[in-house]
Amino acid sequence: MKEPSLPPYTAQGEVRRGAIRENKMSNITPEKMRFWSPDVRELDPYVPGEQPKIQNILKLNTNENPYPPSPNIVAAVQAVLENSADALRLYPDPDATALKQAIAKQQNVDVENVFVGNGSDEVLAHIFKAFFVQEKPILYPDITYSFYPVYSQFFGISAKTKILPLNDDFEIEVGDYKQPNGGIIITNPNAPTSISLGLAEIEEVLQANPDSVVVIDEAYVDFGTESAVSLVTKYENLVVCQTTSKSRSLAGLRVGFAIAQPHLIAALEAVKNSFNSFPIDRFAIAAGVASFEDQDYFEAQCQKVIACRDKLTHELETLGFKVLPSKANFIFASLPSKDAGELTKELRERGIIVRYFNKPRINQFLRITVGTDEQNQRLVDTLKNDILA
Amino acid sequence: MKEPSLPPYTAQGEVRRGAIRENKMSNITPEKMRFWSPDVRELDPYVPGEQPKIQNILKLNTNENPYPPSPNIVAAVQAVLENSADALRLYPDPDATALKQAIAKQQNVDVENVFVGNGSDEVLAHIFKAFFVQEKPILYPDITYSFYPVYSQFFGISAKTKILPLNDDFEIEVGDYKQPNGGIIITNPNAPTSISLGLAEIEEVLQANPDSVVVIDEAYVDFGTESAVSLVTKYENLVVCQTTSKSRSLAGLRVGFAIAQPHLIAALEAVKNSFNSFPIDRFAIAAGVASFEDQDYFEAQCQKVIACRDKLTHELETLGFKVLPSKANFIFASLPSKDAGELTKELRERGIIVRYFNKPRINQFLRITVGTDEQNQRLVDTLKNDILA
Repeated sequence: MKEPSLPPYTAQGEVRRGAIRENKMSNITPEKMRFWSPDVRELDPYVPGEQPKIQNILKLNTNENPYPPSPNIVAAVQAVLENSADALRLYPDPDATALKQAIAKQQNVDVENVFVGNGSDEVLAHIFKAFFVQEKPILYPDITYSFYPVYSQFFGISAKTKILPLNDDFEIEVGDYKQPNGGIIITNPNAPTSISLGLAEIEEVLQANPDSVVVIDEAYVDFGTESAVSLVTKYENLVVCQTTSKSRSLAGLRVGFAIAQPHLIAALEAVKNSFNSFPIDRFAIAAGVASFEDQDYFEAQCQKVIACRDKLTHELETLGFKVLPSKANFIFASLPSKDAGELTKELRERGIIVRYFNKPRINQFLRITVGTDEQNQRLVDTLKNDILA
Repeated sequence: MKEPSLPPYTAQGEVRRGAIRENKMSNITPEKMRFWSPDVRELDPYVPGEQPKIQNILKLNTNENPYPPSPNIVAAVQAVLENSADALRLYPDPDATALKQAIAKQQNVDVENVFVGNGSDEVLAHIFKAFFVQEKPILYPDITYSFYPVYSQFFGISAKTKILPLNDDFEIEVGDYKQPNGGIIITNPNAPTSISLGLAEIEEVLQANPDSVVVIDEAYVDFGTESAVSLVTKYENLVVCQTTSKSRSLAGLRVGFAIAQPHLIAALEAVKNSFNSFPIDRFAIAAGVASFEDQDYFEAQCQKVIACRDKLTHELETLGFKVLPSKANFIFASLPSKDAGELTKELRERGIIVRYFNKPRINQFLRITVGTDEQNQRLVDTLKNDILA
């Protein structure tokens, strides 16, 4: 049997799967497209980093945690299995109350401040629907999580979305977010730039927009940025979104959450209950609870990733890379002497996958997920002794 | 510590949780509602049957299977756990290919005919977005799955939805579905009526609507109705939707799927990838595969439920109930001598929960999930020896 191997490198540095544009160009005739809702014919879906199903690849492309989740998760899922006769045949709690309680306790908020969803992507989709389908324009940076423009399109607000450029240092200019708007979403620390804003700057945005919902998407907050959750009781227009996929090593589980005042949580619940009553299965609820209850493990793992990041940054700088100041579990780096697309390709040929965005302004950067020291050393050695030798 | 007890009976026969109408009336001021998207202020979310967290309740209200899922599921989930260091820290396959393959094999279709989602509710939501946001009206029966009007509202097509009454015997009149439309959705067997259509009638609808997508929602098909999956290769306008929640005893897992020709699956993938890239977690993929690979167990469990249903029907008819001819894992029954709302309340006071819809035409019916013979006997004995004695 043939060994599975990596799909070939593409112009985008990644494989497009099922994207509608390809379908349009290949096997779906205009005649068959008549069945599609007109708006859906125009969708340009998000393309996640690839998940190759092969061994011995060094996978530094989707910002997963190199360390496993809390070992307590195993016992929690075992408990569900041991009661599988009933646990699985019955619907889960549609409100996932146990999970909300565990999150509330860990985040030091009340349970009515918590909304949970099937990964933070679903939470973000519900956020767009709940708050951003407005007459006034939504604001977000030109370089940020690339799912935001997809949500804008999905909910029919693309034409009303105002994209604000980061400055030349790839930083968010807080002053830009003081113009009339129907909502703001800021990733903090930002992705793929890895640069973070302080709480004073977040408060500046919140205070300047008393009639708009300001969403702070904190997918990477646990690696060294101060969370805006502490501001939730103070600001009635703040929604903070987080995920268990990065800092809690639970990307395989699909649990994300939002923290806000109850009148904003109620909008998210109304949207969720108009879409899917039971988005979080019994295993995910049990494992999520176990993770949030194991605070010591969580903190220790975050510190390990931060130490690995700082070491990797130093090593790459020694090789001549320019590395943006990262507060995330990834770094955003460029090598002045070498085209980033070409570098991505050469790393890939050596079994190392990083993420490359062939987009204006950032097409000379690699987004590299922080691995263990050993994994990062493999990357550095491959660069030093092979590609750049 | 106080024993948890059932919440009180309400006018609707069920507890409304987080419904926006209540929020409007209670703690959310109009001033705070300004943050909500205008459309979202009008949403009237779906209310699932309650999931009481107490013991010794006979729960016949949400059409769960009284038997456990395939025992192979335990080993499948154990295998994920044993590899939890990697299995959980990494994102799942966004395409859930292994699950699609197992479904394709069991359904005797190709893998490109399969779409999977986070429960069939998510699949149905994506179906509405992918096919039904049309200029022409969408058609469905007045008495059917009560999530359909919620989706219509969510996707802004309520005003373009045409509700067609069932006939006096609560049957779908196939002839009604031969008028101009932008899409049709039919539950087969229908819920909560439990009555099914034959494939010849489904084909009549498909042939009369060559330019519309016709969705057959087969949540309950495995309890005695012929599936329209066999028609998928013949009709380019057919989408069949099924779930693992009922016949596979996996309501706790959240796996639903659709079967259609590739040009329709592509629309669903475009929608899904514009909403949430990874809706199915690693446990759900593994357990789903194990379920679809255990065909013998599946068939045996379905036969057991059918036998219990037929026995329960006979017993209730003996007590004077009128029971619609059921092809589902529930029955829809009325007692001419007693108000159905009152009966629901009296059963509830005795620890037996059935589902009651306080809606025109069906407010004298109970929807009773088929339990084990022992559970059904408790219902019958309670009626015979206590409530109706």
